[in-house]
Amino acid sequence: MTETGEGPVPAIVLVRPQMGENIGAAARAMLNFGLDRMRLVAPRDGWPNPKATAMASGAGRILDHAGLFDDLAGALADCDYVFATTARGRELAKPVLSPERAMEQARALTAAGKKVAVMFGPERAGLENEDIARANAIITVPVNPEFYSLNLAQSVLLLAYEWRRQGGEVAHEVLANTDHASAVEVEKLADHFETALDRAGFFFPETKAPGMKLVLRNMWSRLALTTSDVQRLHGMLRQLLRDRG
Amino acid sequence: MTETGEGPVPAIVLVRPQMGENIGAAARAMLNFGLDRMRLVAPRDGWPNPKATAMASGAGRILDHAGLFDDLAGALADCDYVFATTARGRELAKPVLSPERAMEQARALTAAGKKVAVMFGPERAGLENEDIARANAIITVPVNPEFYSLNLAQSVLLLAYEWRRQGGEVAHEVLANTDHASAVEVEKLADHFETALDRAGFFFPETKAPGMKLVLRNMWSRLALTTSDVQRLHGMLRQLLRDRG
Repeated sequence: MTETGEGPVPAIVLVRPQMGENIGAAARAMLNFGLDRMRLVAPRDGWPNPKATAMASGAGRILDHAGLFDDLAGALADCDYVFATTARGRELAKPVLSPERAMEQARALTAAGKKVAVMFGPERAGLENEDIARANAIITVPVNPEFYSLNLAQSVLLLAYEWRRQGGEVAHEVLANTDHASAVEVEKLADHFETALDRAGFFFPETKAPGMKLVLRNMWSRLALTTSDVQRLHGMLRQLLRDRG
Repeated sequence: MTETGEGPVPAIVLVRPQMGENIGAAARAMLNFGLDRMRLVAPRDGWPNPKATAMASGAGRILDHAGLFDDLAGALADCDYVFATTARGRELAKPVLSPERAMEQARALTAAGKKVAVMFGPERAGLENEDIARANAIITVPVNPEFYSLNLAQSVLLLAYEWRRQGGEVAHEVLANTDHASAVEVEKLADHFETALDRAGFFFPETKAPGMKLVLRNMWSRLALTTSDVQRLHGMLRQLLRDRG
């Protein structure tokens, strides 16, 4: 059993996984969001598994370093806090957490130097109550009560996504490639259009002109124009006037 | 083109999808989190597609009601706000949002009566810049910069998950099947053990007894025992005493 990892991340523990392809797909799902520690408990078709390797593709190193265990007790022996991902286990007295709350706790625990594991059951049956009893808390993904069809890799994906999201490294909004036009640039553009439209007799009748001009000024401000947009609009207007003149 | 839907939810627009299986898998991903409006733009293998139907399984009604369009303009014609899911498009001056920020906005927009669409590109190539230019904003999933392998259904899944998460209907923590023991129950349990341990000569030497008792009281409180736990522990202690006596 060897494991790799940059910084403390939760171990993903696949309990009695059946299809090699699903183990490989789980590795890919993990690596998308920076999780790279996998543990396998009694995989049905033995280990290593060529089908897992083929599916993992660029995430193969996760499989190379995966820990292999005969039983769940062994896989969890060095873990301080264990989550069980399941839609069941509600008859056990144990906290049932949303993925976001669970990964928030996982972040806090790993930051405090604790070893965290998140376990997932076999594809068809999921975790048994005997497995779940070893967990400190249950994670249940808030799916549509009338339709549940998450496969193993998808469940791993959602937890890995939440892990990364809780890391607080996610930029929520960037305006790509943008140099927002300054207020004075927008004002000059508004002036340019207002003058041209005035000459063209756009603001008619006279009594409504102030209101029309205000609406137009407001529009230019609202559009969140970039400096390039402003230059483009100046150019368009100049060209229109030239063509007409 | 017909669509179904309970309450306003974003339409998921698959632009030039290639494999029928992926269309079906996207439908399943959607329905897990309550999204049921799908639109298809020029699916490569025509429509309807038996492979999509086979894969969709219980989510087949999404396909039955999916809107079919020749081009993207038609698919987006009645939409007020359009998100493009892509890792590209950064050369276009357009806001790039995290899934959570985007679905937060989508919730606000639909609540205000606006029609929202989220578009996804073909499996291999993703959305073209010509497609992205039709969007109001870009959604980029915050994947590991060194490893990106989300497939179409997984991308749809993450956005659908965020949509549901932003709905605020998710219970973050429930203690299943639990009747927390009351303070008085815990106190009586502590009394029971303290008395028994005192008789057994556990609190020795005398000078350390108060401190040892305090530590024990604190432990019982910290354990978050249920009423059943308390009854069980009383029973265990009684049995131990009986057996010894």
